[in-house]
Amino acid sequence: MTHLHTLIERCQPAPAGSFGEDFLLTWDKSDEDIRTLALLAEILSEMHRHGKSFRLYDTGLAISVFRDKSTRTRFSFASAVNALGLALADLDEEKSQISHGETVRETANMISFLTEVIGIRDDMYLGEGNSYMREVSVAVGEGYDAGVLHQRPTVINLQCDIDHPTQAMADLVHLITHFGSAEALRGKKIAMTWAYSPSYGKPLSVPQGIIGLMTRFGMHVSLAAPPGYDLLPDVVERARRQAPASGGTFEIAPTMEDAFRNADIVYPKSWAPLQVMERRTELLKKSDKTGLAALEKECLANNARYTSWECTHSRMRLTAGGNALYMHCLPADISGVSCAQGEVAKNVFERYRLATYREASFKPFVIAAMILMSRKKDVGSFLRHAVTR
Amino acid sequence: MTHLHTLIERCQPAPAGSFGEDFLLTWDKSDEDIRTLALLAEILSEMHRHGKSFRLYDTGLAISVFRDKSTRTRFSFASAVNALGLALADLDEEKSQISHGETVRETANMISFLTEVIGIRDDMYLGEGNSYMREVSVAVGEGYDAGVLHQRPTVINLQCDIDHPTQAMADLVHLITHFGSAEALRGKKIAMTWAYSPSYGKPLSVPQGIIGLMTRFGMHVSLAAPPGYDLLPDVVERARRQAPASGGTFEIAPTMEDAFRNADIVYPKSWAPLQVMERRTELLKKSDKTGLAALEKECLANNARYTSWECTHSRMRLTAGGNALYMHCLPADISGVSCAQGEVAKNVFERYRLATYREASFKPFVIAAMILMSRKKDVGSFLRHAVTR
Amino acid sequence: MTHLHTLIERCQPAPAGSFGEDFLLTWDKSDEDIRTLALLAEILSEMHRHGKSFRLYDTGLAISVFRDKSTRTRFSFASAVNALGLALADLDEEKSQISHGETVRETANMISFLTEVIGIRDDMYLGEGNSYMREVSVAVGEGYDAGVLHQRPTVINLQCDIDHPTQAMADLVHLITHFGSAEALRGKKIAMTWAYSPSYGKPLSVPQGIIGLMTRFGMHVSLAAPPGYDLLPDVVERARRQAPASGGTFEIAPTMEDAFRNADIVYPKSWAPLQVMERRTELLKKSDKTGLAALEKECLANNARYTSWECTHSRMRLTAGGNALYMHCLPADISGVSCAQGEVAKNVFERYRLATYREASFKPFVIAAMILMSRKKDVGSFLRHAVTR
Repeated sequence: MTHLHTLIERCQPAPAGSFGEDFLLTWDKSDEDIRTLALLAEILSEMHRHGKSFRLYDTGLAISVFRDKSTRTRFSFASAVNALGLALADLDEEKSQISHGETVRETANMISFLTEVIGIRDDMYLGEGNSYMREVSVAVGEGYDAGVLHQRPTVINLQCDIDHPTQAMADLVHLITHFGSAEALRGKKIAMTWAYSPSYGKPLSVPQGIIGLMTRFGMHVSLAAPPGYDLLPDVVERARRQAPASGGTFEIAPTMEDAFRNADIVYPKSWAPLQVMERRTELLKKSDKTGLAALEKECLANNARYTSWECTHSRMRLTAGGNALYMHCLPADISGVSCAQGEVAKNVFERYRLATYREASFKPFVIAAMILMSRKKDVGSFLRHAVTR
Repeated sequence: MTHLHTLIERCQPAPAGSFGEDFLLTWDKSDEDIRTLALLAEILSEMHRHGKSFRLYDTGLAISVFRDKSTRTRFSFASAVNALGLALADLDEEKSQISHGETVRETANMISFLTEVIGIRDDMYLGEGNSYMREVSVAVGEGYDAGVLHQRPTVINLQCDIDHPTQAMADLVHLITHFGSAEALRGKKIAMTWAYSPSYGKPLSVPQGIIGLMTRFGMHVSLAAPPGYDLLPDVVERARRQAPASGGTFEIAPTMEDAFRNADIVYPKSWAPLQVMERRTELLKKSDKTGLAALEKECLANNARYTSWECTHSRMRLTAGGNALYMHCLPADISGVSCAQGEVAKNVFERYRLATYREASFKPFVIAAMILMSRKKDVGSFLRHAVTR
Repeated sequence: MTHLHTLIERCQPAPAGSFGEDFLLTWDKSDEDIRTLALLAEILSEMHRHGKSFRLYDTGLAISVFRDKSTRTRFSFASAVNALGLALADLDEEKSQISHGETVRETANMISFLTEVIGIRDDMYLGEGNSYMREVSVAVGEGYDAGVLHQRPTVINLQCDIDHPTQAMADLVHLITHFGSAEALRGKKIAMTWAYSPSYGKPLSVPQGIIGLMTRFGMHVSLAAPPGYDLLPDVVERARRQAPASGGTFEIAPTMEDAFRNADIVYPKSWAPLQVMERRTELLKKSDKTGLAALEKECLANNARYTSWECTHSRMRLTAGGNALYMHCLPADISGVSCAQGEVAKNVFERYRLATYREASFKPFVIAAMILMSRKKDVGSFLRHAVTR
């Protein structure tokens, strides 16, 4: 437990400006908040390893709203709120006649009378997911200000159209523990690249989350994708600005090879072209099944032109020492395992498989840390007390 | 917390005859029980506001059975049982091959071995919802008497064909806190009126619950609806009997205007005609989709004759001081917001929107109070102890 | 509570070799483990009756995976894990894109970071259910060995293609409490017989579980079924070997009457022919709806030849003293109640109805006992401590 105590000693008395705030985008948060959050997540993971409870509540609800399929994030959220002492209630929109639109402000209050946290995944509709979260946030704020709600629930972004902060933060904690410290990331090269998948329409939020977060640590961030597979211009622009400010660089590389060359970390992953996501959003709104089928066909044909974008052994040999850390948010499309041809070669994935599990393992603790920072003013004291009981 | 302590002092040592009993209809309960329940709900809400736990159980299950869509009641029940320390298990009948009929007595016991509370919503089938709840109650009673169940779960009506007691009680607590006391309701006029909605087939249980409860407090209860939109004769008859006994009156007014005139409280809300619900029940039993579609068409056409039944600003001006309290169980069909034309004008709803949230906010605490009164003999002592720990 | 204290005194300091182990088949476990498990389940049931908590955890997840409909087992598992202090998270495969195959090892780890128990029901696919459970077990073992998981979740078989250990163990506890002790079962005759049901395709795991477990207690186990309604040869062979080793016998009787004659216990229950289950497995894998419909038609026609296999009053008169204990895992197909003609006559079932509820009542406590034995080294000390607090 020496390591755990060392970590806890690094918690400042009042470490963060996140108290009472939602977590909607990593770039809404100061560098200090992000570093504190990463530290807290590592501490909570170590506490769990040593059987130390960080339960904060006796009773209370946490609500999840999943507007897309989810395993990892669903169970991470369930684990996190349970460890804090909250009961999970999933808002199944099919069982409750709720839809996008006028009634969000009302529903948000109706479910929040004894609710401490609301986690939302809404990544299907470009331009809408993050807005929906903010609408919920404003609504419960109004209910709280009016004295109807006895507490204002914290809204946590469990993946939207813009960012996937619980994933990006888990990835950051993974890098910090892998390389030893946040400081050790300075000067490291990370390649965030597109990779071929037999499916289409994967959200842009993971690569956006990665370039939006990793450009704040003095790293050399290299983004590569085939023509047309652009990310949201605002996020790319943000990465461009942030990188030099943190002492690093940001580049758009023309090929997977260029991005991989001398990289310390590679993150090859499929996503949909921005323009496809925009058209898909329109079709989904109109429930246009024929249009969606046609779009899928077109996209799969386009995708198929880039099957060579695969993370292979020979590409891995281009990286620093041939030994870069491979990352993935999972599930990966593994050639010859989960599909005929996919994002990563079987032998590469197998070499890093347990490392990707470790990467994922931080997500429940990241979510718990986000909630703790929002609900507890002096998290450091709370944790120092918790490890000694 | 002074207010909270004052409220708790009013809790009698053994306030109620509800110990060990279900809550299926408000009129099954004595006036003293109803007043105690309202007081308890207010106390629990104040305790929650002040961060005081009223947890009763360390472990134990609460089961919900929803035979209709629900958001408000679902989360109110989830919140209430969580605050009492119970875990919620939802009986999803699609996942468990259960249907109306012979096996209710068996299923009721099979799910109850470690269960303290069963909440049921069954409002689709006229003549069946409340009967089903009683069947469950008898079944678990038999299991308990035979020593198979170690405890007899309390059955709570979360809305049936006859009454919606958690809603009506939340409405009562809202009125008591709004006007200052149960005594202050004496002589007040409440208008329970039908209002136009673009949908059809809404249950009768809310208006029935309101006239069945509010006629017990010396109020002047005025019911108004278009021709054919009758309520269950038994409930109307009960309201007629109860009103004079409590020192109030009950009338059926010919128009919305008549009901609104000089009202202190208005509750304009859509419901289906009784005869339609009877025919609908038969069609639902036979799964007759063509019949249901034809009935819907006929009803919507009939409904459309009464679009003028809307709670408008000019109608609100007819009320006492032009200032009556507007109530709704939510969600309301708001003209120009959630539909083109509905139950209430946008400006009227907006004026009272936060008040309707407050009205809804009492439901979790009403449910928790119902459970407490059934499971705990001396609730007063329990709460006095709880606020001081 | 004297009985409870007597039972607890019989708990050995370190009673079992099940610590850290899954529960996948009763015959994986030693006789001592099985007897300890039965004793523990009885103790936990008595503790619950006396309001004594056996909560083990403050927080933590239990995950259920139901690949078939379930009421009894679902709520038994929910009750058991709640009583131990765990929160239940159901893995709904439709909401999480999981399927049989390559990714089981990954998913198993992804949901297990804070998970103590995984309960799985997978009884539809012959040759696959138990294998799937073992795959999950190996996967989480790998994650634990690699340090990714801080604890190795215990996998509990909630019914597979081979065995239904929580049912068979609940049945055993029922017999032990009914006859007074495990020793009292020696020499008793139990008839496990097929019975007619208007449905087809019921799993083989209950009769297999019964003959696989009851042949270990010196009982005379008689199995009877119409031609073709065979069980898995491996399990029958195991029963044949186990019976004489325990001082009992095992026979396959030609008719229901032969099995019932002088039986002390009868367990008449429908199941599908082995060969049908094999063909059904192939069709289900191919999602061949036409094939499944044809198979159902053929099977129902074959089933209909054996409508006389019903547990009637006159057949019950053949049993020891005309007074055998009737058992069923429920729900039973009761002639004239839940179907026109079924497994058991109405008057026979009614006579034993509450006894079948009692039989079922042990299942939550069996599951809790399985988990306790796997997670707690010295269960005896834990329980002795728990009853005195």
